[in-house]
Formats: sequence, C-alpha cells, structure tokens
Amino acid sequence: MKLCLLGPEGTFSEMAARKWSRDADLIFMDDMESVAIAVEEGACDEGILPIENSLEGPVGAVMGLLLDISSPIIGEVILPIKQCLMSRGSLENIRIIVSHPQALGQCRHYIHEHFPGAEVRTTGSTSHAARLAQEFPEMAAIGCSESAQKYGLKVLKEGIQDHPNNYTRFIVLGRKEAAPTGHDKTSLAVYLDRDRPGALYDFLGEFAHRQINMTRIESRPSKKLLGDYWFFIDVEGHRDDALLREAISALKDKCTTLKVLGSYPRADIA
Amino acid sequence: MKLCLLGPEGTFSEMAARKWSRDADLIFMDDMESVAIAVEEGACDEGILPIENSLEGPVGAVMGLLLDISSPIIGEVILPIKQCLMSRGSLENIRIIVSHPQALGQCRHYIHEHFPGAEVRTTGSTSHAARLAQEFPEMAAIGCSESAQKYGLKVLKEGIQDHPNNYTRFIVLGRKEAAPTGHDKTSLAVYLDRDRPGALYDFLGEFAHRQINMTRIESRPSKKLLGDYWFFIDVEGHRDDALLREAISALKDKCTTLKVLGSYPRADIA
Repeated sequence: MKLCLLGPEGTFSEMAARKWSRDADLIFMDDMESVAIAVEEGACDEGILPIENSLEGPVGAVMGLLLDISSPIIGEVILPIKQCLMSRGSLENIRIIVSHPQALGQCRHYIHEHFPGAEVRTTGSTSHAARLAQEFPEMAAIGCSESAQKYGLKVLKEGIQDHPNNYTRFIVLGRKEAAPTGHDKTSLAVYLDRDRPGALYDFLGEFAHRQINMTRIESRPSKKLLGDYWFFIDVEGHRDDALLREAISALKDKCTTLKVLGSYPRADIA
Repeated sequence: MKLCLLGPEGTFSEMAARKWSRDADLIFMDDMESVAIAVEEGACDEGILPIENSLEGPVGAVMGLLLDISSPIIGEVILPIKQCLMSRGSLENIRIIVSHPQALGQCRHYIHEHFPGAEVRTTGSTSHAARLAQEFPEMAAIGCSESAQKYGLKVLKEGIQDHPNNYTRFIVLGRKEAAPTGHDKTSLAVYLDRDRPGALYDFLGEFAHRQINMTRIESRPSKKLLGDYWFFIDVEGHRDDALLREAISALKDKCTTLKVLGSYPRADIA
C-alpha cells in the first residue's frame, strides 16, 4: 500500500503515518496539495494530512483542499505533540529560531519569554527547519526529537509547547468510503445561505432533534465576501446509519451546498 | 487621543488607524499583546487590532487576547487589502520572499505559481518585511504600497493576493462601552459544556427565536483538550437593546462562561 504524506522524513506527519500503518510504503511529497492530488489521481492509495491541533486550531489549507477533491476521508489519527528546541550550538548563542508556523505558534510564549530578541523564521516543515539548523550554530529548530537524531542536532530543551495538551489530529484520504464499525464519525462541509437569519440554527437542529452529537464545528472564509463562511462539521455516526442518513437528506434541502467529506472510525486520544 | 497599534509605520494597521481617526496620536507597539495591555492599563486611550481577514480567516492571537482583557471593543474598521510585491532588485533575481504569515497566506497561490523555488520567510509585520528587503536585492517583501515608498523599494507587482475580495476587519479597544446608534453589533465569547449534545444548538436558539441575526461564529481551541472550543459570536444589535439584553441574560444560564466583548457601531465594507 502506498501512503503519501508531507515530507521530508522525520516530521510529525511521518509519526502519524506510522501510527496509521506500520507496513505502508511512505511516499514523501513537497506540499499538502500534492498529497491530496496523489490520492485523487490514483498515484497513491492513501494520503495523510494534519487537520487540527489542540492549541493552534484548524489547518486552514487542508480544509480548503477538502472542498476541491472527491477522495473521501477514510480514517483519522490523533498524535500527541512534544516540541523540542534543537541546535548544533548551545542555548546562550541562539539568535534565530526556525520552524513550521504551527510549531512556532504552539511555542509562542516559550519563545517570547526565553528568546525575546531572537529572529523567528518559518519553514515548510519542522524537518526542513532541523535540516536548516544543521548549517548554523546560532540557529535553533523546533520540532520532534526524531528529527534532531536524523539531522545530528542536540535537543536543548524538550516539551517547550505552551500547553501540556498538545495533540494534532490527522485525516487519512483514500479511494473507497470506510464501512460502518459502530464507533464512527462523519465529516461534512456546508455552505449556508448567509442572508437568512437563523440558517445555522436550523441546520444544527436536524442533528440536535435526532440526538446526534456534534463533535466539532469550524467556520472557514468562503473567500467571496468578508463574513461569508463554509462550515466544517463533524458528527458522531456513519452516513449509512439510519438516523444520520435521514438528517443528511433533510439538510440537503436546507443549504446551498452540502458535501459529505467521509464517514470513518473515530480515533481516541489515548 | 492616543491610539496604539502594531508597528512599525507603513503597515495596513496604520491605514486602518487613520481610517478610524484622522487626528489621533499614533503610538506604535512591538506586538499585539502590548496594544491590548496599553489600553487595559491606561497608557493609551484606544488600541486597534486586526481580528479577521476575508481570505485567511481569524487572527487567532487576537481572539485569545480578548478572553484575557476587560477593555471593551468600541468599534470596528474594514480595510480593503491590496498586497504588493516589492524589492530593491528585479523580478528575475528574487530568491527569498518575506512577509507577515497572514500576507503570505493571502498570496499562497501567487508565490507557488511565480516563485516555486523561492525561500519563504516570515516577519512580525509587512513593514518589517519591507525594511528587511531594503538590504538584499534578491529579497522581495509582500505588503502595502505605502511601505514600498517608505523603504525605497520598487513595487514589482500590485494586487498579488489570490482572491479579489481581500478585506481585513480591525477592532478598536477602548475604555468605555460605545452608546447605541441603531446600527450596532455585539461580540460575545462563550464556553459551552462540551459533554452535552446540542449545547451549541440550544445556545443559538436564544438568538434565532428572537430573530436576532448572527453575523459571525468562530470556534477557537480552548487549549485544554482536542475538540474543546471557545465560540466567538457576533450578533446584530446593542447589548442595551431589550431583545438582546433578554437573550444574553437567558444565555448566561446555559453556558459555563459568557463574556460580552463589546457593543459597537457596525462598519460597512464600502
């Protein structure tokens, strides 16, 4: 099985991919769009992408991709994230801190408190940051300890994220919808008529009246107008469950566009 | 009147501040937290901060700040955003692109298409980026044309944002709640009991049943658990309006925490 993910090696994405499948051939891509396209066009069987972090919130670019592709979400992986500060040099000499924007965001207070004067630069991944830090002893990368090993950096400090509950949820894209397991989740994207007061309330009512639990709601700018949103909603259950099927069918009449992004087994945090 | 904002000079924040007040003394701060604190502690009368962009969505850090301070939102400014690519050098030689993460995000496709091999670095503001680009002819900054002028850069390309409808909404923090004008908006932050199915639906019902229009809803990670959120909700009307006062009082019984962030005159896009 070919499983594609955001490269290079040694990132949290690789750890999530290994948690999803021990045996898959991992195909590393340059950006998140390429991961989605590889699954969509059949170059890979499955692809794994980060969708939200418990500190920094949604990964907006991935939410945008989900609107454009037809490959369903077939699974999810929840990965605990421990950010490390690593460098060739020593703590006193760090003048530049590099990492992916999400990782920098997760350590905002730590950086502000311990390196108030440092220049902060972003890279496309935490692993790129580690590779870059190989070259300059005054530079520290933030990322997982695996990439320190891989790029010959010292871990100067472990667990520097601002809050202890740091998890990233990844979704797995595939070819064929996952079968019901009795412990499932369904992800939807909805575009409502913004000019009708109470449209979102009406919409959520179809779930509430059927006692269907909503586990997540995110709004994402439609890019058409300020204040015009897509809503991304996760509910418990599989789209083939009778109640959820009924709710989705009722909802289709209530909104301009409703896209079922996939039904798949729920992952637990532990 | 002392109005503080994110510095340095020449950013979209300065344009928004001038749209809010022609005559105020502008006090430039190093980061957004300092703007909020200056108002909270009385060092400035008012402060202006970006809260959402029509392409990139909410400014998460500002939403976090609003939970921590007691200064009310007293107004808003909507600013059209035209991003420019500017440099001391010429288009062919650009190898590094620098800007604030929001500006980079607004131009993601443009950068990907026209500078696929360029290194992308972030700075604390678009103006910092322009200042940095002064030094290196192979570097281009993304920001407003005002900062090109200020830092002696050539505008190589104008309007490079990926979508034409690019607006940023700013909020103004002040000391004293704004009086009702008949064309107002009220911003709330709400923490619901996540273990109760339908809690958000119930909550929104208090507005829907009173025909109070909701203009915005955003979720923001509570940083306690994955899937645990604060909701930021904007509704039409002033907290002193009878119907809205009634709704807010009913809502206080329905959620763990409800914070009224402010009632203030609505700005229009034009």
